[in-house]
Amino acid sequence: MTIARADGRAYDELRPVHITRAFTDVPEGSVLIECGNTRVMCTATFTPGVPRWRKDSGLGWVTAEYSMLPRATAQRTDRESVRGKIGGRTHEISRLIGRCLRGVVNMEALGENQIQLDCDVLQADGGTRTASITGAYVALVDALRWAKENGKIKAVSDVLLDSVSAVSVGVIDGEPMLDLPYVEDSRAMTDMNVAMTGSGKFIEIQGTAEHRPFSRDELNVLLDLAAKGNAELQAAQKAALEA
Amino acid sequence: MTIARADGRAYDELRPVHITRAFTDVPEGSVLIECGNTRVMCTATFTPGVPRWRKDSGLGWVTAEYSMLPRATAQRTDRESVRGKIGGRTHEISRLIGRCLRGVVNMEALGENQIQLDCDVLQADGGTRTASITGAYVALVDALRWAKENGKIKAVSDVLLDSVSAVSVGVIDGEPMLDLPYVEDSRAMTDMNVAMTGSGKFIEIQGTAEHRPFSRDELNVLLDLAAKGNAELQAAQKAALEA
Amino acid sequence: MTIARADGRAYDELRPVHITRAFTDVPEGSVLIECGNTRVMCTATFTPGVPRWRKDSGLGWVTAEYSMLPRATAQRTDRESVRGKIGGRTHEISRLIGRCLRGVVNMEALGENQIQLDCDVLQADGGTRTASITGAYVALVDALRWAKENGKIKAVSDVLLDSVSAVSVGVIDGEPMLDLPYVEDSRAMTDMNVAMTGSGKFIEIQGTAEHRPFSRDELNVLLDLAAKGNAELQAAQKAALEA
Amino acid sequence: MTIARADGRAYDELRPVHITRAFTDVPEGSVLIECGNTRVMCTATFTPGVPRWRKDSGLGWVTAEYSMLPRATAQRTDRESVRGKIGGRTHEISRLIGRCLRGVVNMEALGENQIQLDCDVLQADGGTRTASITGAYVALVDALRWAKENGKIKAVSDVLLDSVSAVSVGVIDGEPMLDLPYVEDSRAMTDMNVAMTGSGKFIEIQGTAEHRPFSRDELNVLLDLAAKGNAELQAAQKAALEA
Amino acid sequence: MTIARADGRAYDELRPVHITRAFTDVPEGSVLIECGNTRVMCTATFTPGVPRWRKDSGLGWVTAEYSMLPRATAQRTDRESVRGKIGGRTHEISRLIGRCLRGVVNMEALGENQIQLDCDVLQADGGTRTASITGAYVALVDALRWAKENGKIKAVSDVLLDSVSAVSVGVIDGEPMLDLPYVEDSRAMTDMNVAMTGSGKFIEIQGTAEHRPFSRDELNVLLDLAAKGNAELQAAQKAALEA
Amino acid sequence: MTIARADGRAYDELRPVHITRAFTDVPEGSVLIECGNTRVMCTATFTPGVPRWRKDSGLGWVTAEYSMLPRATAQRTDRESVRGKIGGRTHEISRLIGRCLRGVVNMEALGENQIQLDCDVLQADGGTRTASITGAYVALVDALRWAKENGKIKAVSDVLLDSVSAVSVGVIDGEPMLDLPYVEDSRAMTDMNVAMTGSGKFIEIQGTAEHRPFSRDELNVLLDLAAKGNAELQAAQKAALEA
Repeated sequence: MTIARADGRAYDELRPVHITRAFTDVPEGSVLIECGNTRVMCTATFTPGVPRWRKDSGLGWVTAEYSMLPRATAQRTDRESVRGKIGGRTHEISRLIGRCLRGVVNMEALGENQIQLDCDVLQADGGTRTASITGAYVALVDALRWAKENGKIKAVSDVLLDSVSAVSVGVIDGEPMLDLPYVEDSRAMTDMNVAMTGSGKFIEIQGTAEHRPFSRDELNVLLDLAAKGNAELQAAQKAALEA
Repeated sequence: MTIARADGRAYDELRPVHITRAFTDVPEGSVLIECGNTRVMCTATFTPGVPRWRKDSGLGWVTAEYSMLPRATAQRTDRESVRGKIGGRTHEISRLIGRCLRGVVNMEALGENQIQLDCDVLQADGGTRTASITGAYVALVDALRWAKENGKIKAVSDVLLDSVSAVSVGVIDGEPMLDLPYVEDSRAMTDMNVAMTGSGKFIEIQGTAEHRPFSRDELNVLLDLAAKGNAELQAAQKAALEA
Repeated sequence: MTIARADGRAYDELRPVHITRAFTDVPEGSVLIECGNTRVMCTATFTPGVPRWRKDSGLGWVTAEYSMLPRATAQRTDRESVRGKIGGRTHEISRLIGRCLRGVVNMEALGENQIQLDCDVLQADGGTRTASITGAYVALVDALRWAKENGKIKAVSDVLLDSVSAVSVGVIDGEPMLDLPYVEDSRAMTDMNVAMTGSGKFIEIQGTAEHRPFSRDELNVLLDLAAKGNAELQAAQKAALEA
Repeated sequence: MTIARADGRAYDELRPVHITRAFTDVPEGSVLIECGNTRVMCTATFTPGVPRWRKDSGLGWVTAEYSMLPRATAQRTDRESVRGKIGGRTHEISRLIGRCLRGVVNMEALGENQIQLDCDVLQADGGTRTASITGAYVALVDALRWAKENGKIKAVSDVLLDSVSAVSVGVIDGEPMLDLPYVEDSRAMTDMNVAMTGSGKFIEIQGTAEHRPFSRDELNVLLDLAAKGNAELQAAQKAALEA
Repeated sequence: MTIARADGRAYDELRPVHITRAFTDVPEGSVLIECGNTRVMCTATFTPGVPRWRKDSGLGWVTAEYSMLPRATAQRTDRESVRGKIGGRTHEISRLIGRCLRGVVNMEALGENQIQLDCDVLQADGGTRTASITGAYVALVDALRWAKENGKIKAVSDVLLDSVSAVSVGVIDGEPMLDLPYVEDSRAMTDMNVAMTGSGKFIEIQGTAEHRPFSRDELNVLLDLAAKGNAELQAAQKAALEA
Repeated sequence: MTIARADGRAYDELRPVHITRAFTDVPEGSVLIECGNTRVMCTATFTPGVPRWRKDSGLGWVTAEYSMLPRATAQRTDRESVRGKIGGRTHEISRLIGRCLRGVVNMEALGENQIQLDCDVLQADGGTRTASITGAYVALVDALRWAKENGKIKAVSDVLLDSVSAVSVGVIDGEPMLDLPYVEDSRAMTDMNVAMTGSGKFIEIQGTAEHRPFSRDELNVLLDLAAKGNAELQAAQKAALEA
């Protein structure tokens, strides 16, 4: 493992993580997460009631929407509202975030309430979907604490089955690496996003090898890296939530 | 003028203004403007070339897009990208911002280059459109300085005819007031947004009196307040740009 | 004031105004208004009930939609229905018309009924939005008279707080002018639409100076012209309604 | 044939037809056609050049768009621009009008020029699609005369192969009838729109019998009625064009 | 009648017809119809209840949707779902199919139930709309048989007033022809789709002569051909339904 | 491993696979793949030239679109063309199929040509996305053979780096299972789609555990099952391509 990374990190080293709670005033949960230069604002909105298709089920619902501000990127991206439709990438990421967060929520304990997670990327430098998942979890906890204080749920611990975070791993010039910034991500032959619980289980694995298939051995190395990264992200989440 | 304002301000007093330049790293201009609890991220994107309808005119173009994040407001607002169309209010404000900024730009000196201003409201507490104009001006100047440094224009002073800021004024329970937060704005009988240049001229006046028509005398008082407020906002812009 | 106008009018002279009531047979109010070559068909539809968000408020609602037929203009304009979305200009004007008409309606006296004003421009020669407001007012009165006759409201005079009309003013080559046709409008440095009540108060002022900021003195001259023009338009409305 | 019609007409009698040319000033052809209470504004726009798929073919193109103003009908219809899409009925009628007019145009003689026919229904009382075809033909002739005068085509007679008009026929309570107003149209068991040339040939037959199939004999009676009606409409077109 | 057809058929000869019932497993009716190289999958969905506008009428509803798979044609056609709107041709054909099938259904006997017919063209070689009608009828019958077996209707024969099929006829190089494949259809000067009942009456006649008007005599020849073709198609429907 | 599967298969047994080539006549590749009751029509369209953003790169492009016919499912699904937008699930699957197929194509050898894969689900019984990938590969090979025969590429073997197939695996009531039909899929706590090359490497792994996180050990068992299934699917692909 001797390839130098542009930012001087070791191959198994995360970028600096900063989690700011109460980033804005009104949402039930509002978090700014910074992973290196990637910055995502994650808000959690708690609303009594569930979508029509889930009414009278006794179960709650958690959903997510992801979006990039036009100048989150080096080249300005046209707004999807102006184009009049949501692109495939946005749809794919919104669905991923929603599944990951639902994976740690007990819908029965949540009751017929809905939590909407909005992840808006202020600045993009790789790993925006994984940062969104990691940040949205903290916003979710804050929204549940608000719900507990306001008598909407019995206990936060009933609703939360576990914590969840996510990180990207990839193979760059043949070397497995943890937490890819844009410059590495765009060169990766294999690219994998791994969401894990605090107890070390998988909630979502999305590995794609459009540019070069990967072997079972490589997969195992990548999953080891992801486990290390997620453990560190979960420590950061915990520290932020205890602050 | 004896009505108490919820935040204790005098009737002719602005909310605290903070302007942060280089709020994000990649845009040619990136500004966070805070007017009380209202916070808008304004970026300016400088692109060589102009839209097709303006080609070979020798003239530049300046345009703006305004948007609110879903939880900028107390009640979550559905994304316009999800609804598949831009609402009338968004259209109206985007067009207003564009006109105001074009009002201080010499399109010939800009040459066939385009500046796109994106104003994304992170938190809304009244006056988001006027804060957008005031903040976008600072982002515009930064983008022009970038353009000068990168040899895209000859001099910033050639392109900028003047500065521009905007502020809201309104009549609350019969009393004219400067710079309305949401709690006042929603009760205003008359509501006016006034964009003025650094030299004290008007670029845009939009007064609406859906709830009670206003007299010429009231108009004059409101315009006096707006002139005072804009002068102070322009001082804040200048201080930020000299920092 | 020595600049000759293309149509020989004095600087403070309106174009000829013709208001035809009952232009079509079925609407509760149906008006053709002609201001010079500008012709707008304005219909008012009275419907029992209000939109969902206003139910059980005891209040009525008035709303407006503006549109141009494809060959209202010298160059054919593509239909917004074909493009699949409403443009910003259309949105902006529809909202303006709605606000102006709501400004003279007592929503409590209207009760839970809705009036929809449709302003369709058959021919455009400048001032289509102000002609729409002036014509829509007459259609609104006819719809209220219909409502009174059909027992939907108690008295027209309870619902109508005042009359409303609108006119454009602008500065052409440094000279303030009243009621701009297209040829003047497109050269105006400053352009203002002013909606006023019969009692001489303002309902809406929209002044834009994209091409040259204007001073407080110029504003005052323009408002004097607008007051004169609106008084004459209101005389024309009155004459039409008494016919 | 003893059933009384609501408007007192004989079963084989057209409603009164009025054709007003130069209804508006700017289009190359602008016609108001009135068939009883049905009123349609038909404009013809002549534009040099053809759509991309027809470039360099040496052939011209004729196309049509049909639309109803919201209060053309007793119940207000929502605008298709507001709904964001064109309905099936509108699509179907626009295509029908286009085919009928193309049926009398020599595309080679028209050269690479396009004529767009816009048929906007101001008031609807049955037969709007057939009135549109009949009126659009007159607008088309005026646009071709304009084109001849402006040197865009060699001769009107080269381009026009024939005239075209259209009329509805139907079976009401078992009786064939010519030119159905809304009150009859909505009760018709069989409904047919027939477009014919001045020389008595068919360009389009659209017969639908959703409510009761019709026999070959009935078809023949209906076609006889349509032939009579179209001959009279063509006389009205001719008179208007000679005025 | 001496012109040779590319596929060697006589001028009054249908292409080979194959009707496969239960083409897929789950729909209440599922039919693959093949007319020469044209192949359409027609499914019928029986659903209790009717659209809102028809509620409490005691009447049923039958509706249809037509679509082409992207590579049904020699050149790939973009999906309408990707383009975000349905084209005029699709709208026109969907409406045609719906009218034809409704033409043989007794809505009172159907009761407040809805049947949706989906006609998806797997391969297109002319006559896709007429094949859709012919195939949809068979799917409709299967859905009604299912409804009878499941106690949703009293008897199939109460609901079905008659059978219906459709075929295209046209004039190619001056010769009337039955059942046009694409190569003929694209050269036809006159093109007619004729839907007829088993008892030999017309449900829909759509004749278009964009390229050369046709005379009453030609019409009569074409209708004779259509009657012959429809009788044969109805024999094929009957055989399939008895199988 | 003692749980009985509804269809009597062993836990590591694929459903019967049938691959029909030349399912329709015109596409360069046209395949019907049946995996149990799941049936997908996969066509490959070869077009010279690439999308604009890839021009002059010397590289080809492969893309995919996935769609379900309305009655592929037990409950009819509304068409996305009718709803006017593509849903998130469709977007996600289309992108997945595209990435998998691009993963085995040498874009340089393909040259500036595009292959569009259309996967239309005729009948859905679980595993539609994996069946689409497996079938699309066969259609891709046929399109490349067509391209070779028509002189568009030098050799099929230059363009194809490997074969690719995909299969689903999941945990049902605690037991890992291969190739889930709908009845199992909807009960799966963990669900994974695995695309592999003929040489046994991974192109895409998408594991989701919305309902119960999975451990590293479970992952390993699931990947073993997927490897077995993919090897068998690749044998079926090979047999079909040699037929």
